[in-house]
Amino acid sequence: MDRVVIIGLGLIGGSMGLALKKAKVKNLEIVGIDVDRDAVVKASRKKAVDSTERTAAEAVKKAAIVVVATPLLVIPEVFKAIAESLPSGCVVTDTGSTKEQVMAWAEEILPERVHFVGGHPMAGKEISGIGGADANLFVEKSYCVVPSASASTGAVDLVVSLAQTVGSNPFFINAQEHDALVGGISHLPLLLSAALVSVTTRSPSWREMSVLASSGYRDVSRLASSDPKLGFGIAKTNKVNLIRWIDGYIEVLSEYRRMVLDDGEDLVDELDKVLLAREKWLSDAKQSDEDDLMKDLPTASERMSELFLGGNISRLMRREQEITDELRRPDKK
Amino acid sequence: MDRVVIIGLGLIGGSMGLALKKAKVKNLEIVGIDVDRDAVVKASRKKAVDSTERTAAEAVKKAAIVVVATPLLVIPEVFKAIAESLPSGCVVTDTGSTKEQVMAWAEEILPERVHFVGGHPMAGKEISGIGGADANLFVEKSYCVVPSASASTGAVDLVVSLAQTVGSNPFFINAQEHDALVGGISHLPLLLSAALVSVTTRSPSWREMSVLASSGYRDVSRLASSDPKLGFGIAKTNKVNLIRWIDGYIEVLSEYRRMVLDDGEDLVDELDKVLLAREKWLSDAKQSDEDDLMKDLPTASERMSELFLGGNISRLMRREQEITDELRRPDKK
Repeated sequence: MDRVVIIGLGLIGGSMGLALKKAKVKNLEIVGIDVDRDAVVKASRKKAVDSTERTAAEAVKKAAIVVVATPLLVIPEVFKAIAESLPSGCVVTDTGSTKEQVMAWAEEILPERVHFVGGHPMAGKEISGIGGADANLFVEKSYCVVPSASASTGAVDLVVSLAQTVGSNPFFINAQEHDALVGGISHLPLLLSAALVSVTTRSPSWREMSVLASSGYRDVSRLASSDPKLGFGIAKTNKVNLIRWIDGYIEVLSEYRRMVLDDGEDLVDELDKVLLAREKWLSDAKQSDEDDLMKDLPTASERMSELFLGGNISRLMRREQEITDELRRPDKK
Repeated sequence: MDRVVIIGLGLIGGSMGLALKKAKVKNLEIVGIDVDRDAVVKASRKKAVDSTERTAAEAVKKAAIVVVATPLLVIPEVFKAIAESLPSGCVVTDTGSTKEQVMAWAEEILPERVHFVGGHPMAGKEISGIGGADANLFVEKSYCVVPSASASTGAVDLVVSLAQTVGSNPFFINAQEHDALVGGISHLPLLLSAALVSVTTRSPSWREMSVLASSGYRDVSRLASSDPKLGFGIAKTNKVNLIRWIDGYIEVLSEYRRMVLDDGEDLVDELDKVLLAREKWLSDAKQSDEDDLMKDLPTASERMSELFLGGNISRLMRREQEITDELRRPDKK
């Protein structure tokens, strides 16, 4: 059996387990770990994991791949907790919302004998925690793959295969670029959504307003229901990009303000542009979904089995690692 | 037959027709009018209307109730076009997103022999136009009812009954308060959503960002797909409130910016507050939905039939109007 260890059984970790189960990868054992016992029980009941272990360190001992799906700021603690127990050649990945800081933590904390490949599935949901876990959460979503400098091709392949197996589309990107771009399409919207709830619920008229608020308000405010730890982690680890996006946004909104003051003639042109841009985005995304349907879907899970098969991947990595270690041996001329 | 004339067969007008048909109000004839012939054809095909007429003026001649569901800024033109043809005692209502200006137009343009009751169903959808029309669009949504000073109780009852018949919950409010509150929960979110699309699509990296943008971006940007005429109308007719809400929002967002700079410690508290506030809003809304399910739903449509029955309402109003006219007659001492 090839062991996948998922550390953190929230929305992402739980969905990952469910998606892997659904893909029926051969010889795969999914071990789930969470500090919250309740989450572990729920994940087991939902059959998102096959088993659990007492500690993360215990669980990773025989792991072929470890997926760290905890809140962002907990990642370094998890790395520290498992570092000594990780087997040689093991592939470690994460699902955190920012990547520069995570790559730095991995570089700093994880041992050289393991391969770190950063990951970020571009998927979310209103309901956080294991309660929202869904086998289809990642389907047709992009999945950012950020290989560390030292990760082997085999390790990168395995994370790519994992992303495909859960139904998503791997997207190679470097950590800096990831944080800059995701700042605009994910972290900024999160704060905008929350700020809308702040400004409206602070109003003395909120009671009446709340009765009138409808589907538009619900959608724009949806991300305000995200786990606050997510916003906290983003603010801590993507500060510069986030500030830059907030400033850009305030500039645009001030422009809108001027257009409203000017009787809206320019505003209608801008709204036309925006409508077309969004339509194009939606139709491009749809097109790429259709293109993806052309892929033979079972292939991803078969490929993952192959990569794992009989511990091939681990053996392969261990061999690679031995060569690397050998090359590094001080007594070598 | 009691004639309802719907002028403007877009998302709202079309949905109104479908909802009235679905409610099976007895003896009701739904006449639909639109300057766009295509919309009329589609509305007929969807069976949102029973028939059409060449002009709005023609259509309203025998109307018991006229629903003006055109874009906001077209409302005064429609009022002018129908003013002379409206029968005595006829009830006129609208579905515009702002109310102060609409009430002023009605006061200024509509003849005294008709009863104007402003209306605003708090419902919308990503797909605008007749294509998005949906018999359930108004179900469990609030429907603002803004009686003009001169509207009779019977006229107000009829609009309340119309709102209930299409499945929504009537909410009495005055025009000024309406515009202030709706500015925060509807007009502001519309601009915020559009501004997110502006700032992201203007980025030189939009091509890559567009691949990563996922469900969070989709939801927060949803209102950017609204008909630009809606934003234009709002900007023109609710300028002061909109500017006030934009300013309040920029203030909150600047506060968020400071909290991000300060390492997010206060931000996580604010996000906690916001999460709870939104949960409360969602659960209150759900609770009121459940309360509403206690109402006997067919009642609304029966009540509307009764109000209409055999032209009772029109006759009643005509009588009221005759009395008013009599009282006003200059020869009366």
